[in-house]
Amino acid sequence: MTTWGESHGPAVGAVIDGCPPAIPLGTEHIQDMLDRRRPGTTTASTRRKETDRVRILSGVFEGKTTGTPILLVIDNEDARPEAYAAYAWLFRPGHGDITYAEKYGIRDWRGGGRASARETAARVAAGAVARAVLAGKGIAVRAYTLELGGIRAGRKHLADADQNPYGCPDAEAARQMEDRVQQVRSQGDSIGGIVEVEATGVPAGLGEPVFDKLDAELAKALMSIGAVKGVEIGSGFEAARMLGSQNNDPITPEGFATNHAGGILAGISSGAPVVVRVAVKPIPSISILQKTIDTEGRPVSLSVKGRHDVAAIPRINVVCEAMVNMVLVDFLLRQRAIAGGQGSAIPGP
Amino acid sequence: MTTWGESHGPAVGAVIDGCPPAIPLGTEHIQDMLDRRRPGTTTASTRRKETDRVRILSGVFEGKTTGTPILLVIDNEDARPEAYAAYAWLFRPGHGDITYAEKYGIRDWRGGGRASARETAARVAAGAVARAVLAGKGIAVRAYTLELGGIRAGRKHLADADQNPYGCPDAEAARQMEDRVQQVRSQGDSIGGIVEVEATGVPAGLGEPVFDKLDAELAKALMSIGAVKGVEIGSGFEAARMLGSQNNDPITPEGFATNHAGGILAGISSGAPVVVRVAVKPIPSISILQKTIDTEGRPVSLSVKGRHDVAAIPRINVVCEAMVNMVLVDFLLRQRAIAGGQGSAIPGP
Amino acid sequence: MTTWGESHGPAVGAVIDGCPPAIPLGTEHIQDMLDRRRPGTTTASTRRKETDRVRILSGVFEGKTTGTPILLVIDNEDARPEAYAAYAWLFRPGHGDITYAEKYGIRDWRGGGRASARETAARVAAGAVARAVLAGKGIAVRAYTLELGGIRAGRKHLADADQNPYGCPDAEAARQMEDRVQQVRSQGDSIGGIVEVEATGVPAGLGEPVFDKLDAELAKALMSIGAVKGVEIGSGFEAARMLGSQNNDPITPEGFATNHAGGILAGISSGAPVVVRVAVKPIPSISILQKTIDTEGRPVSLSVKGRHDVAAIPRINVVCEAMVNMVLVDFLLRQRAIAGGQGSAIPGP
Amino acid sequence: MTTWGESHGPAVGAVIDGCPPAIPLGTEHIQDMLDRRRPGTTTASTRRKETDRVRILSGVFEGKTTGTPILLVIDNEDARPEAYAAYAWLFRPGHGDITYAEKYGIRDWRGGGRASARETAARVAAGAVARAVLAGKGIAVRAYTLELGGIRAGRKHLADADQNPYGCPDAEAARQMEDRVQQVRSQGDSIGGIVEVEATGVPAGLGEPVFDKLDAELAKALMSIGAVKGVEIGSGFEAARMLGSQNNDPITPEGFATNHAGGILAGISSGAPVVVRVAVKPIPSISILQKTIDTEGRPVSLSVKGRHDVAAIPRINVVCEAMVNMVLVDFLLRQRAIAGGQGSAIPGP
Repeated sequence: MTTWGESHGPAVGAVIDGCPPAIPLGTEHIQDMLDRRRPGTTTASTRRKETDRVRILSGVFEGKTTGTPILLVIDNEDARPEAYAAYAWLFRPGHGDITYAEKYGIRDWRGGGRASARETAARVAAGAVARAVLAGKGIAVRAYTLELGGIRAGRKHLADADQNPYGCPDAEAARQMEDRVQQVRSQGDSIGGIVEVEATGVPAGLGEPVFDKLDAELAKALMSIGAVKGVEIGSGFEAARMLGSQNNDPITPEGFATNHAGGILAGISSGAPVVVRVAVKPIPSISILQKTIDTEGRPVSLSVKGRHDVAAIPRINVVCEAMVNMVLVDFLLRQRAIAGGQGSAIPGP
Repeated sequence: MTTWGESHGPAVGAVIDGCPPAIPLGTEHIQDMLDRRRPGTTTASTRRKETDRVRILSGVFEGKTTGTPILLVIDNEDARPEAYAAYAWLFRPGHGDITYAEKYGIRDWRGGGRASARETAARVAAGAVARAVLAGKGIAVRAYTLELGGIRAGRKHLADADQNPYGCPDAEAARQMEDRVQQVRSQGDSIGGIVEVEATGVPAGLGEPVFDKLDAELAKALMSIGAVKGVEIGSGFEAARMLGSQNNDPITPEGFATNHAGGILAGISSGAPVVVRVAVKPIPSISILQKTIDTEGRPVSLSVKGRHDVAAIPRINVVCEAMVNMVLVDFLLRQRAIAGGQGSAIPGP
Repeated sequence: MTTWGESHGPAVGAVIDGCPPAIPLGTEHIQDMLDRRRPGTTTASTRRKETDRVRILSGVFEGKTTGTPILLVIDNEDARPEAYAAYAWLFRPGHGDITYAEKYGIRDWRGGGRASARETAARVAAGAVARAVLAGKGIAVRAYTLELGGIRAGRKHLADADQNPYGCPDAEAARQMEDRVQQVRSQGDSIGGIVEVEATGVPAGLGEPVFDKLDAELAKALMSIGAVKGVEIGSGFEAARMLGSQNNDPITPEGFATNHAGGILAGISSGAPVVVRVAVKPIPSISILQKTIDTEGRPVSLSVKGRHDVAAIPRINVVCEAMVNMVLVDFLLRQRAIAGGQGSAIPGP
Repeated sequence: MTTWGESHGPAVGAVIDGCPPAIPLGTEHIQDMLDRRRPGTTTASTRRKETDRVRILSGVFEGKTTGTPILLVIDNEDARPEAYAAYAWLFRPGHGDITYAEKYGIRDWRGGGRASARETAARVAAGAVARAVLAGKGIAVRAYTLELGGIRAGRKHLADADQNPYGCPDAEAARQMEDRVQQVRSQGDSIGGIVEVEATGVPAGLGEPVFDKLDAELAKALMSIGAVKGVEIGSGFEAARMLGSQNNDPITPEGFATNHAGGILAGISSGAPVVVRVAVKPIPSISILQKTIDTEGRPVSLSVKGRHDVAAIPRINVVCEAMVNMVLVDFLLRQRAIAGGQGSAIPGP
């Protein structure tokens, strides 16, 4: 899978190569995930207008995938590059402006260009295609908000996560998150949080032994989302403080008694739910005055105006889901290649 | 880079393809890193005897790399497969025994086979080759123990990390770690901890924009180490609780005022030190009695005897260093390919 | 580089990842190559109307590449899928109809779908981008018709190849080719031929030692064009009948005295012109009655009507050029990565 | 698969990653192919003594593959680097000496170093592992000599190819080849020829649609063998002179009536035998005096002495077989990944 497109160019999109044939696929299998990423659904999000309609230009015939590359296009309808002209000559703190300039010696400054979170729309569309493949295998991936601006969900009623705009499995915490967002917005500041992703129905046996472990690829896929600064599996950083006798999951004839391992042992799925958490940094675009330099190296002060989110959560949740979907499909196909029906892991299609 | 070899087979090793030519390289450039991974230097480590002498079978001519594949071999001198015969018919909790069986339907049960930490010797040897490439560029990678068994280093005197067996930059904390290890060993239990890796001298511009971000590849490389359950960059999970105005690093004509980003912005190195932390789980092999099942699915109890570490730290530290070295070399070469001398990032060789 | 799109879907195109930054690029750098592939310029070609206008949707900013993925789109303006409805239920001989059905169990039968030569428009567009990169390095790639329908160019005046519609470096042979095409067309049959590609200005040192040799990648790239059934380098199949003393190219202080090696020794470019020839099979779509089976396996007879070329030459010539351009850019970047300025091969950008 | 090792270093070998588990494998499955590559069986070959015993250092347990990387080592027993000291300061015509020097700026001159045909021993060993995988699928690959020094096999009795040292399916032609070799050897010269490879039992459906076509990968794999200068599929270069009505293979309910396509349509296997031919150049090491330059660029004359073959045929035949085996296994695994049991192509393991 490759994505392409800049924030304020004509469109963003993705090419998916190697998708199995005969999978039912239409825009209706993609649009609901894109809608969850779309701005404007919570107080935390930007008011940029994006209808985010996906078009499928290839790889699907009579409602089914053909096995050939699938091109997905999402037009940028509300592009306003001129709004960014002020930033053409300086480097916004916390953004990739300065590193792109260093790397390429040339930079598309319109809304972050390639580094914009707009790029994740393409990931979500591609992730929806991956979800369509997984759906036939009984695998379901779900992301929800565990923490936002320091407010942590006290309980995990996953059904509740659908009932509040923050995707939080604790309705009461969701209400506090709304207050926190209002307060931070009024200060011109921003906040971060923690998203948890759970994949159920993952068969045992996915993941390669050494470098391409399932947890390694999940870490890469999730860390590749712009705002993510940390990834942990199962008990994660908490495991660093546990005893072996606490952290080991006893195995019983009925399955694992606990799931500190987060569904992954030695880099290979165990059949237990795969559980991953990501740390999401605060949005770097804030209207509070910050110090930076211009492209000539001179000190300047900057207040970032414009249509920015207060938090990447909850819009980022579906991006996390999309990435996990894609990683799981890749390993499902690899396992079909490697072991065929040999291990107990992968039933035939 | 590919590694090969099982814990109790004849040898482990690595093949390195694509190493630049004319880099001075001999076993003397590799052995010191292997020695740091070797067991027996602290109370925490196994008493398995491994001299871990590396041999270079190809790719070096008259003391310099030729640009062709380098084969590194480390013979397994103290292999005792028979010691593991008792585990051939059951699945040790916290180990990959059960997932390998599910994945492949066949399993080399001798000391964890391919899933053994012995595999990391090959990573360390390859990482030393990567270090030899980086040395000529002024890049230095250093791993140290931030936390072990709940005891956290209160300060970071990196020079101190060389002076105590736990690789801890706080001498007093290192003493407490020793006590903690003694206590846990006497209980037949094990502990985990947190390792921090810092890379200095990394030029700005390393890392690819979208999926192959520098932080994404670091996360993959480090998470691919067996005992690692979490990876964070810069302020990491702490960033989830910070405000944007706190977490953004102001840019000044002299450089970044702070380094919450851990040296990476939008997936590309910024020129500031790259800082990564990993969560290391407790060693799963403990002599305390645990519940598991045998290969027929019947419940059994298990006390793992043998030559096991109490903690993967500090032996794992040099493995983390090796992985970061390799990731940095890969991106250095990619950046040379992509931008040549265009950006300011990469000076000529 | 990935291409996508079906012959009679809405569009075809390519995504190019890893293009160096700051390369001047606009549609004007691409259109001339697309125009050479466009049908209708010779008697040999289909009368399908394709204006083949390329659009660049990403990766270019203010007339220069930014280093991020470039999406090229070529709309299918004259798609007539209904013309192919008759072929939905049978397998055309010499086409991929039957193998796609076997491979995927599902098939886009509209004009060959993914297997259509229409896919090569995307290759040509991407090859033009590669040419833009090479242009700055003094490398030029040129394809011309050596043989068509059994008529062979007797001499190689490359300037003449621009002056006749068959791209033949022998004006007299080109006239005979025209006669041959007329004759074959009137019989409802088709012909093949041989295209030679020459790349000048290729620096010594491109190509990897073992599997990814320069000649190996050229062979793959050219053989991946649908109509190509053979690839040879330098003296090629003729070398099989030569003595070592004839085939070896003597080396002199002024360079190689001959170029039987076709500019490649041990898989690495030598600095001499790179010379490759490809065998192009006759177009399989002919109106002469042929035997085949329908999708139920029953024997049927088939006369393929429609807008088909009599020969893939000369339209295929620019496709060959495009593929060679892309291979050379890839190796140029790889060599920059591997050797930096170490060998004498690659001057800085 | 990666190979490593230099001609006159301590050993050559290969690492095979991604081999399916539970395949019966021992040195006895490899040695017979290595023996066919070993020198000294015909008048045409070098008298270098290589017993070429393979050792398996990893990835096999109790006689079966485990799915983890397999390391194969073949020690260099008769290495005589000092015999090449004379060539350290000059570039042998037809060899990679000059291109390696240009590429890397450093060169292992001992017997061609990495560019030596000795490297193909590792390919053969790896190809034997691939053959072990294919054996369980009913796929068999066979290479034989079609032409040597201008003498062409008049008929194809494949059984005869086992009965003469030249692997020629025409016993009478084999006798003439022997005479030709004697004659050329006495002149201090060398010859080339053509090898044909046939793979039977290949299921329909192998090969990817666009760039990774089956014929494209075969072309790459075979062209990556040092002495190969051309590759053709089915009717190959002959197709360039045929009419569409001749070259198209009619499809009947019983299968294809002819096999001009060489078992591949649109880059995907058709179920018919896969037929590939390669052009093998004359061995460049000849004792006849040749012009060349030394490493300072001064003209010198050179007569290459030493233990050299007169022709790469027949030793190269088994190398071709090995490469085709590897390509077929790769595509078999890819097809299992992509289509599972969807197409009719690939039966379960």
